Amino acid sequence: MAQTFEVTILGTGSAKPTSSRLPSAQWLKIGSQKILIDCGEGTQMQLMKLGIGFNNVNAIFISHLHGDHLFGLPGYVNTMSLHNRSKKLKIYGPPGIKDLLNLVLHLGRTTLSFEIEYVEIPKQPHTLLVDEFGYKVYSVALKHRVECYGYIFEECGPERKINIEACEELEVPFTWYEKLRNGQNYIATDGSEIDYEELTIQGQPNRRYAYISDTIFDPGIVPYLSKINLLYHEATFAHNLQARAKETYHSTAFQAAQIAQMAEVKRLLIGHFSSRYDDIEPLKLEAQTVFKNTEIAIEGTCYTIK
Amino acid sequence: MAQTFEVTILGTGSAKPTSSRLPSAQWLKIGSQKILIDCGEGTQMQLMKLGIGFNNVNAIFISHLHGDHLFGLPGYVNTMSLHNRSKKLKIYGPPGIKDLLNLVLHLGRTTLSFEIEYVEIPKQPHTLLVDEFGYKVYSVALKHRVECYGYIFEECGPERKINIEACEELEVPFTWYEKLRNGQNYIATDGSEIDYEELTIQGQPNRRYAYISDTIFDPGIVPYLSKINLLYHEATFAHNLQARAKETYHSTAFQAAQIAQMAEVKRLLIGHFSSRYDDIEPLKLEAQTVFKNTEIAIEGTCYTIK
Repeated sequence: MAQTFEVTILGTGSAKPTSSRLPSAQWLKIGSQKILIDCGEGTQMQLMKLGIGFNNVNAIFISHLHGDHLFGLPGYVNTMSLHNRSKKLKIYGPPGIKDLLNLVLHLGRTTLSFEIEYVEIPKQPHTLLVDEFGYKVYSVALKHRVECYGYIFEECGPERKINIEACEELEVPFTWYEKLRNGQNYIATDGSEIDYEELTIQGQPNRRYAYISDTIFDPGIVPYLSKINLLYHEATFAHNLQARAKETYHSTAFQAAQIAQMAEVKRLLIGHFSSRYDDIEPLKLEAQTVFKNTEIAIEGTCYTIK
Repeated sequence: MAQTFEVTILGTGSAKPTSSRLPSAQWLKIGSQKILIDCGEGTQMQLMKLGIGFNNVNAIFISHLHGDHLFGLPGYVNTMSLHNRSKKLKIYGPPGIKDLLNLVLHLGRTTLSFEIEYVEIPKQPHTLLVDEFGYKVYSVALKHRVECYGYIFEECGPERKINIEACEELEVPFTWYEKLRNGQNYIATDGSEIDYEELTIQGQPNRRYAYISDTIFDPGIVPYLSKINLLYHEATFAHNLQARAKETYHSTAFQAAQIAQMAEVKRLLIGHFSSRYDDIEPLKLEAQTVFKNTEIAIEGTCYTIK
């Protein structure tokens, strides 16, 4: 059975909050790892409402320092401390997050119960940030009004499976199975070597989830979106407001779908909707004219990456 | 008819948010003036949910710089700017608020559509902060873990009413009525002077609302709480946790009631409840053993100061 790899949408709004949509935040699970992506105001309340045990988050990734992606972070960090978190927390994002948290801790004369390690995203188009605990994370530089990064999350289980028949025939001990899956050749007790490819078969490729928010329409990111199973792409406006999207460095639903199509992703999830839209259905229909497998991100819904 | 003087409770939680209670915030209306008291995370969403037109707030009073009273402020200020507020906003509170807002605006490369005037509360036991637009506001220094102030809001309409019979008998023109209510003697056309007290009668005294949060049990504030119609006093704990209350510089429901009794207020509203209490009823019953006219502050409820 495949390991858990799923994302729960916490907020689908944009800069102006509405009474029906919260600002950006997502909760990602890869195997036993729990990751928060962006942290708009109200994220901790939303996590509580959804019954998610938020104290066990392993890392937080912030895309950029606009309030609708950031203003829930001070409260969330404070609350984890009040729950006596002891495990170190890694926070990834553009520079400035440390200054903000240090200031609010100073103002409140607060000492956290745990350590925070801040990781500033290198100003590169594409950087491997994490390769441990069974997953990889890459940043993708986006074009927005401030320094902004998308993130690609990739499970990194072994891509090969044991060929049981072949192994049994050659009496390969169980203790070698993990090594074989990871591409090591088998050395028998008589010293003979058998290529791992003869003893394993190609498994499913590692699944990849991409979080792209906020950005102007930018086909320059497509090369980094190869083999994406699920792409979340912002779709702040409908395409009749293309000029407004360009002016504010955002995308339209149509443009999000164009990126999905160019990158040949399996599935597209659109979000970060302008407060002007009560009904999102037209944005979905607009995107589907370009990319059929488009869905609206719905707050509180958990999407399996498959 | 008396002018509007009412407070809507937005949050009744304390440091640790719960799924049923938001952190501290209150929305006060005095005549045409709209005031926000404290601004915990989620305040702007709560205002939207309750259908309160929050862009017209005249002033914000922050009690202290703990997150559960402050972390909604950056988002609220941002949102007012996105709604193109142009009117200057006054923010009252301990020093540090300006630093926080300036930092988040800098990080987001944001320029507000309006000006903010920051008023630091003088480090005095009791200060008159506002005396305009038909109301007064006084600060009351509280004893908490950080610099902290309660606020007293007082309407300042004229305390005297026109004695119609006396005025008609002496043929006092209508144009003098406002002056008489404000304590000016009447000068007739023949130069004779009549004392305003002969032409007016004593009206209702000006109503006063006190917001006391967060504080250790402190009878030292009682002298400032004279003639209070409605007292909101924090009641973080039940009295069996008196030691915990003292240690964290908070009050118990019993202690809140003691303050209400000593100050001879008309009515007590308790709030800022610890996340450990699902059911607040026992805290009310505890307070009522000392001060009968105690109510639980309920989120979304509007209380008239009478």
